[in-house]
Amino acid sequence: EEERLHNHLFRHYNTAIRPVRKSTDPVQVSLTFSLMQIHMLDEKVQVFRTYGWLIVKWLDERLQWESTEYDNMTEFVVASTSIWTPELALINAVEYQFPDFTNYRAILMNDGEVRWEPAGVFETSCKIDITFYPYDNQVCSLVFGTWTYTSFKVNLTNSTPEVLMDDYNPSGQWHILGSQVSRKEFIYECCPHICFSKVEVLLYLKRRHRFYTMNLILPCAMLSSLTLVTFLSPPDQGEKISLGISILLSFSVFMLQLSENMPKTSETLPLFGIYTTFVMLMNTWSVMLTVLILNLHHRNEDRPVPGWVRTLVFEGFARLLCM
Amino acid sequence: EEERLHNHLFRHYNTAIRPVRKSTDPVQVSLTFSLMQIHMLDEKVQVFRTYGWLIVKWLDERLQWESTEYDNMTEFVVASTSIWTPELALINAVEYQFPDFTNYRAILMNDGEVRWEPAGVFETSCKIDITFYPYDNQVCSLVFGTWTYTSFKVNLTNSTPEVLMDDYNPSGQWHILGSQVSRKEFIYECCPHICFSKVEVLLYLKRRHRFYTMNLILPCAMLSSLTLVTFLSPPDQGEKISLGISILLSFSVFMLQLSENMPKTSETLPLFGIYTTFVMLMNTWSVMLTVLILNLHHRNEDRPVPGWVRTLVFEGFARLLCM
Amino acid sequence: EEERLHNHLFRHYNTAIRPVRKSTDPVQVSLTFSLMQIHMLDEKVQVFRTYGWLIVKWLDERLQWESTEYDNMTEFVVASTSIWTPELALINAVEYQFPDFTNYRAILMNDGEVRWEPAGVFETSCKIDITFYPYDNQVCSLVFGTWTYTSFKVNLTNSTPEVLMDDYNPSGQWHILGSQVSRKEFIYECCPHICFSKVEVLLYLKRRHRFYTMNLILPCAMLSSLTLVTFLSPPDQGEKISLGISILLSFSVFMLQLSENMPKTSETLPLFGIYTTFVMLMNTWSVMLTVLILNLHHRNEDRPVPGWVRTLVFEGFARLLCM
Amino acid sequence: EEERLHNHLFRHYNTAIRPVRKSTDPVQVSLTFSLMQIHMLDEKVQVFRTYGWLIVKWLDERLQWESTEYDNMTEFVVASTSIWTPELALINAVEYQFPDFTNYRAILMNDGEVRWEPAGVFETSCKIDITFYPYDNQVCSLVFGTWTYTSFKVNLTNSTPEVLMDDYNPSGQWHILGSQVSRKEFIYECCPHICFSKVEVLLYLKRRHRFYTMNLILPCAMLSSLTLVTFLSPPDQGEKISLGISILLSFSVFMLQLSENMPKTSETLPLFGIYTTFVMLMNTWSVMLTVLILNLHHRNEDRPVPGWVRTLVFEGFARLLCM
Amino acid sequence: EEERLHNHLFRHYNTAIRPVRKSTDPVQVSLTFSLMQIHMLDEKVQVFRTYGWLIVKWLDERLQWESTEYDNMTEFVVASTSIWTPELALINAVEYQFPDFTNYRAILMNDGEVRWEPAGVFETSCKIDITFYPYDNQVCSLVFGTWTYTSFKVNLTNSTPEVLMDDYNPSGQWHILGSQVSRKEFIYECCPHICFSKVEVLLYLKRRHRFYTMNLILPCAMLSSLTLVTFLSPPDQGEKISLGISILLSFSVFMLQLSENMPKTSETLPLFGIYTTFVMLMNTWSVMLTVLILNLHHRNEDRPVPGWVRTLVFEGFARLLCM
Repeated sequence: EEERLHNHLFRHYNTAIRPVRKSTDPVQVSLTFSLMQIHMLDEKVQVFRTYGWLIVKWLDERLQWESTEYDNMTEFVVASTSIWTPELALINAVEYQFPDFTNYRAILMNDGEVRWEPAGVFETSCKIDITFYPYDNQVCSLVFGTWTYTSFKVNLTNSTPEVLMDDYNPSGQWHILGSQVSRKEFIYECCPHICFSKVEVLLYLKRRHRFYTMNLILPCAMLSSLTLVTFLSPPDQGEKISLGISILLSFSVFMLQLSENMPKTSETLPLFGIYTTFVMLMNTWSVMLTVLILNLHHRNEDRPVPGWVRTLVFEGFARLLCM
Repeated sequence: EEERLHNHLFRHYNTAIRPVRKSTDPVQVSLTFSLMQIHMLDEKVQVFRTYGWLIVKWLDERLQWESTEYDNMTEFVVASTSIWTPELALINAVEYQFPDFTNYRAILMNDGEVRWEPAGVFETSCKIDITFYPYDNQVCSLVFGTWTYTSFKVNLTNSTPEVLMDDYNPSGQWHILGSQVSRKEFIYECCPHICFSKVEVLLYLKRRHRFYTMNLILPCAMLSSLTLVTFLSPPDQGEKISLGISILLSFSVFMLQLSENMPKTSETLPLFGIYTTFVMLMNTWSVMLTVLILNLHHRNEDRPVPGWVRTLVFEGFARLLCM
Repeated sequence: EEERLHNHLFRHYNTAIRPVRKSTDPVQVSLTFSLMQIHMLDEKVQVFRTYGWLIVKWLDERLQWESTEYDNMTEFVVASTSIWTPELALINAVEYQFPDFTNYRAILMNDGEVRWEPAGVFETSCKIDITFYPYDNQVCSLVFGTWTYTSFKVNLTNSTPEVLMDDYNPSGQWHILGSQVSRKEFIYECCPHICFSKVEVLLYLKRRHRFYTMNLILPCAMLSSLTLVTFLSPPDQGEKISLGISILLSFSVFMLQLSENMPKTSETLPLFGIYTTFVMLMNTWSVMLTVLILNLHHRNEDRPVPGWVRTLVFEGFARLLCM
Repeated sequence: EEERLHNHLFRHYNTAIRPVRKSTDPVQVSLTFSLMQIHMLDEKVQVFRTYGWLIVKWLDERLQWESTEYDNMTEFVVASTSIWTPELALINAVEYQFPDFTNYRAILMNDGEVRWEPAGVFETSCKIDITFYPYDNQVCSLVFGTWTYTSFKVNLTNSTPEVLMDDYNPSGQWHILGSQVSRKEFIYECCPHICFSKVEVLLYLKRRHRFYTMNLILPCAMLSSLTLVTFLSPPDQGEKISLGISILLSFSVFMLQLSENMPKTSETLPLFGIYTTFVMLMNTWSVMLTVLILNLHHRNEDRPVPGWVRTLVFEGFARLLCM
Repeated sequence: EEERLHNHLFRHYNTAIRPVRKSTDPVQVSLTFSLMQIHMLDEKVQVFRTYGWLIVKWLDERLQWESTEYDNMTEFVVASTSIWTPELALINAVEYQFPDFTNYRAILMNDGEVRWEPAGVFETSCKIDITFYPYDNQVCSLVFGTWTYTSFKVNLTNSTPEVLMDDYNPSGQWHILGSQVSRKEFIYECCPHICFSKVEVLLYLKRRHRFYTMNLILPCAMLSSLTLVTFLSPPDQGEKISLGISILLSFSVFMLQLSENMPKTSETLPLFGIYTTFVMLMNTWSVMLTVLILNLHHRNEDRPVPGWVRTLVFEGFARLLCM
C-alpha cells in the first residue's frame, strides 16, 4: 500500500534539512536542460525567453525503502513541497530569480535517488550585438546556480555536455547552431575560500533572415536605387526637388522604424542603420545642391561672375583638379 | 446529515496517495474537452487561446459510501483540494503548464466515481502556416497529459472522439471545420520502457475572410490597378513621377502594416506579401525608367547618338528581337 | 461579549457542509446585482468590463443564536472564509470564472440569515453587433451561476427584477436604456434530469455618439465632399491627379484607423466601413479615368480614330443609349 | 523581555473580534492621508493614480500592558495580521477595493492605542471635465470606508482636515491647489436606519500647461495661420489646392492625435477639439471653392452666362447686399 | 547532524520578536547594495529600474550554537521565513514598498551573525531633468529603510560607502559616473523625538549619446539645413511653397516623436525641443511670406502702390534703417 510507504517516509522528515549523513558533505546535484521552444529574443530590451525543462537528480538517503516490503514498488511520486529540493536560482534572470516550481512533483526511487523535472518559461538577459543585423549570430545563456549554498554544501554539476533537443519545436526566427552545458564556479573577491557552483547553458543562435531580407533590405535597396535617379531627373521641371524630398521622407520613416526595433544602446550601431543614415545624408545634400543650382539657373544672367568666385574656381579648383 | 458523511470519508484520507488498491495498478482517468469560445489565434506570436472546460472522471474507492446509511445521498460535492486529483499538465502550454484548477469542486458518487469539471483559459502554442493568408486553414491543438506519472501509474484516456460543442459560442474570425480528441503515448529515447499517456485535442480551423477581403485585398487591388495607369500618364506634365512615387509610398505603408501582423518567421512567407513586394519592385522600376526617359527627352538633341549605343541597339537588340 | 458568540457559533462549524437540515433540501440563495460603473465595452476584443457588487442572501441554521443571551446582538460580522459560502461562478467570464471574493466579510443575523455583498470588476464576453457603428445599441450580460452544484443542492434566484442603480456613476460612452435580472435554468443534453440554476443580468446599452460624430463622421463627410470636387478640377493643370491621389491616401488612412478599432470578425461589417470602401473605390476609378483622359488629350491628334473604336462607339453605344 | 510581552498579549487574542468592551459600542477609528506622489491622472480612462499612506489609529483594550512590568516598554511593533485591523475599503477604487496592507506592521502603545500606517498605490476613478483642456482644473477623490460594518460597529473619522503634504514630491504635470479630508455618512434607500461612515480625501488639481502649450497649442496656431495664407496664394499656379490639401491633412493628423488622448466620452467635448474641427471645416470649404473657381476660370469663355445665374446674381444677391 | 541543530535552534524561536537581550536596545542592521544591471531609466514615466541584491547582516543571539557540539558546523542555511528578518521597505518605490524576499534563504553563523542576500528588481521613482537631453546626466536613488520601527528599535547602517560593482553588467545606455551609499535619518514634524534610519543608494549616470546623435540629432540637423535652402529656391516655380510645407510636416512628425518620449512635465522643457519648435516657427513664417510675395508677384501690376504703403515704406522703414 502506497499509504503505508508514505507514512514510513514522511513521519520524521524535515524539509529544511539537507539530505546528507555528515553535515560537512555536499549534496551532489546533477542538472541538465531540455529545450522545448524559443519564445523570442527581443532585440529591443535584450531579453531571451525560452521554454524548457530541467532534469535534476540527487540522492536523499532518508527516502530509501526496501521495495520488497512495499509490494515491490521501486518508484514513488510525491509533491516537491513535501521533500527537500535544491535551491535553484536562475542567476541571470531578468525579473524572478526563483521560478515557481512548486507544482512539479518529484519521483523517488527506492535507492534514495530523487528525480525532479520542473518546466518553465525562463527569461534571461542576453547581450545582443546588432552590428550585422539582420544577418547576425547571437549567443544567449541560462545560468542555473545556488544563491545561498556554497559548493561545499550543495554542488551542482551538469549531467550532459549539451542541451537536450528531443522535444525541441524549431523556431521560425532562429536557427540553433549548437549548444553547450557546462559547470562553472564563481568566487567573490571578498571571500576567496568560498565558491559557488553553477551550471551554464549556452545556445548559439543564427537569425533566419528571409523575412528581414524581404521586408527590410529589399525596400531599402529600392529606395537607394531611386536616390540615384534623382540625379538624372531634369531640373527644369521642378520635379527634381519633390522627388528628392519624397525619398528623404521615406528614408526617415524607414530609419524611424529601424531605430524602434533596435536597442537604444550606444555600444554598437547596426551597419544597416549607418548605411541608411549615410544615404539620407547624400539625399539631403542632393536636394540642397539642386535648390542652389536652380537658384543660379533662374537668376538674372546679366550680372558678371563676382571676382572672388572667378579667382576661386579658375585658380583654386583648377589647381586642385590639376588642370 | 452531510457532516457525518464528510467526517466518514475524510477522517483517514490522504490526498497524496493514488486511489488504487494495489500499488501496481494504474489509475484510469478519462478526459474530454468542451469548447466554449475561441479567444484568439494570434498570428504574430503563434499563440492559440481558447476558453473551455475539461470533464475528468476517475474512480476513488476510498470515497465510497452506502447511500442508504446517509439519507439516500448518492452525490456529494467537495472541494478539489481535499481529495486526490490527477496531475493534469497542459503539455504544449505557452506559459503555465499547470492551470489553476483549485477553485473547481468535484462531485463524488457513492460508488466511488469522481467527476471533476475544471474550466479555464488555455494558451497553447500553435504553429501557423501563413502562406495563404488571409485564405488559410489552421490546425491547433491542446495536449493534456501527466508530467510525472507514467501511464503505469496514471493512465489518461479520451472519453469522446470529438470536442464537445454544446456551449460553443461561435467565433467571428474562425470557422471550426472539425475536431478530434485522441489518446497518445510518448516514450523518451532514454528510457523506452517508460511511457506517458496524453490526450490530444485537435481543432481544424478555417479563417473567415470577409473582413480581410474588404480591408486588405480590396485596397491592395485598387493600388495595383493604379500602378497600371502610371504607364499611361503623359510624361511631359511631370505628373508621371509624382504619381509613381505616391503609389510606391502607399505600397510601402501597406507592406509595413502587413509585416507587423505577420510572425517574423522565415519559414514561409505569405503569398500576398510576395505579390506586394513584386508590385512595389515594378513600381520602382517604372519610376526609374520614367526619370531616365524624361532625362533623354529634355536633353539637348543636337548631339548624335553615341556609336556604341547605336551598335548595341541596331545590332544587338535587333538580332535579339529577330528583326 | 462578541468573543463568546464567536466561540459559540464556530466551535463545531465545518465550512465544507451545506447549511441545510436534510441533505435532500436545496440551499435557497437569492442574488441581485448593483451596478457602480461601466468600465468599458471593448469593441475590438468584445469584452464588457463592469464594476459592481452582488447582494447575496441565504439561510444558515447553524449560525443562529438567541440575541437575548448575547447582549441583544442581532448582527455579527465575520470573515467570509470562516463560513460556508455558495459557489458563485461568473459563467460567461472572459478569464477567471471565480472572482476573488475572500476579502469581503459577511453579516450574520441572529435568525440565521447571512448577507454577503462582494464587489468586483467583472469581465464578461459580449457579442457586439457593429453594423450601425457608431449609432449602435448593444445588449451585454453577466451570468452568475453554480458550476458544480445542481439546483437540487444550491438553488439561485434573483431577488430583484432589475439591476440596482443607486450607486451608479453614469458612463460618458454608454447610456443605459434598461436592465433585467432573471433566473434561468440550463440542462445538459447528456443528463436531462439534472439542471443548474443561474441568474442572468442583462444591460441594454446605447452608445453616446457625439464624440464619434465629431471625430469620425464629420471628417469622413469632409473627405467625401472633397471627392466630388475632384470631378470639377480642370484636367489641364495636372492638379486633378494629385488631388485624387491625396484624397485616396486620406481615405485609406481613415479606413485603416477604423479597421483597427473594429473586431476582426467577418460576421457583420460596419455600414460605415462599407461606405468608406465604396467612396475609395469611386476615387480610384476617378484617378484612373483622369489619367486615361489626360493620355488621350496629350496624344498626337493627327491619327484617325481606329476603325473598331468608331464601330464600337457609333454603333454599339449609340444603340445602347437608344440614340 | 519582548517575548514575554508577546505571549502575554496574544495568548487569548482572537483577531476576528472587534476591540470593544460592550458589543453595542462602535470602534472609533481615526484616519488621515499623507500624499507622497501623484503618479498620473489618465484622461483617457479617467483613472487617478496616487501613491501615499494612511495613518490609522484606534483603541484596542485587549492590547494594554503595564509598562513597568515589561522593562518600561511603551511601544511594541507587531505584524498587522496578528491583531484586529479595521476593514478599510477604497470605495471608489477602479479595480481592487481592498489594497494589500498585510506587509505593514502596526505599533501598539501600552495604553491600548494602535497606530497603523499602511502605504500603497491607490487607483481611483476620477470624472474628468476636459472642456478647457489643456488649461483645466480637476477635482479627484479617494474615498476610504467600511464595506460591511455599519457606523454603529466601526466609526471612521478624519483626524486632520487636510491631506498631509510633508513627504509630497511635487508632480511635473499637476499643481495641487488645495486638499480636503472629511467624514461622510451614506445611507441606502432600502434601510434608512443603517448608515456607513467613510472618509473622503479630495485633491484640487490644476494642470501645468507649459508642455501642452508648446507641443499642442503652438503647432495648432501655426497651422491655423497657414490656413489664412491659403486665401492669398495665387490660384493660377495650382499651388493653392495642394497647399490647402496639405494643411487639411496636417489638421486631420493633429485631430487624430488629440482624440486619441481624450476619453471617448460624449458628455463634454474639448473646446480645443471643436476649434480644430471648425478650422478643418473652413479648410475643406476653401479647397472646394478654389477648385470651383479654377473650373470657372479655365472654362471656355465663349458661352454666355446662363439666364438663371444672371437673374440670381443681379437680382437676388444685389438686393441681398443692398446694392 | 543538521537536524539536531535545527531542532535546537528553532524549538522556542518566535519570529515576531526582535533579536535583542534588552528590549530598549536597537537591532544593528548593516546593509549594502550590489548592482547587477540597470534595466532602464524611463524618461516618460520617470521610473528607474535596477536589478541587484542587498547584503544584510545582523546579530541574532538566539541563533548561536557551539560548533564543537555539532560536527564543527559554523554555518547553517535556513529559510528566511523561519527567522526574524528586519523590515526592509524600498521607501521611494513606485509600486510595491515591500519586495518579495521570501524565497531568499539566510546564512546563520555559529556566533549568531545572520547574513541575508535577497535580490530583486527594484523600481524607484527618479526625477529626471531633461533640459540637456540627449546629452544629460541623471542622479537616481534607491532608499531602503524601516517603515514602522524607529531607529531605537532597528538601526540601519551602510556597510560600504559605495555600491558594489563586482557583478555589474554594463548598460549600453548609461555610463555610471559614480555611486554612493549613505545612512540618513529622517524625523517627522509631528514627533521630533522619533527618528527613522534609512540607507540611501545614489547612482550618478551619464547617458551614452551615440544612438541619439545618430537617430535624433543628425536627422534634425539635416532638416534644419534644408530649411535654409528654402529661402534660396526660386519662387516662380511654385516649388518654394511645397518645399516649405514638406519640411514643416517633417518637423512636426519629428516633434511629435520627441514629445512622445519625453515626460509630460512642464517644469523643464528640453532645449532640443525648444530649438525644434523655433525652427518650425521660422518655417511657418517662411511659407507665409512666400505666399504673400507670390501674391504680390502675380498681381495686376497696373495699380499704383497705395499711398499708405508708400508712406510706410519710404518714410517709416527708411528712417528705421537709417537710410
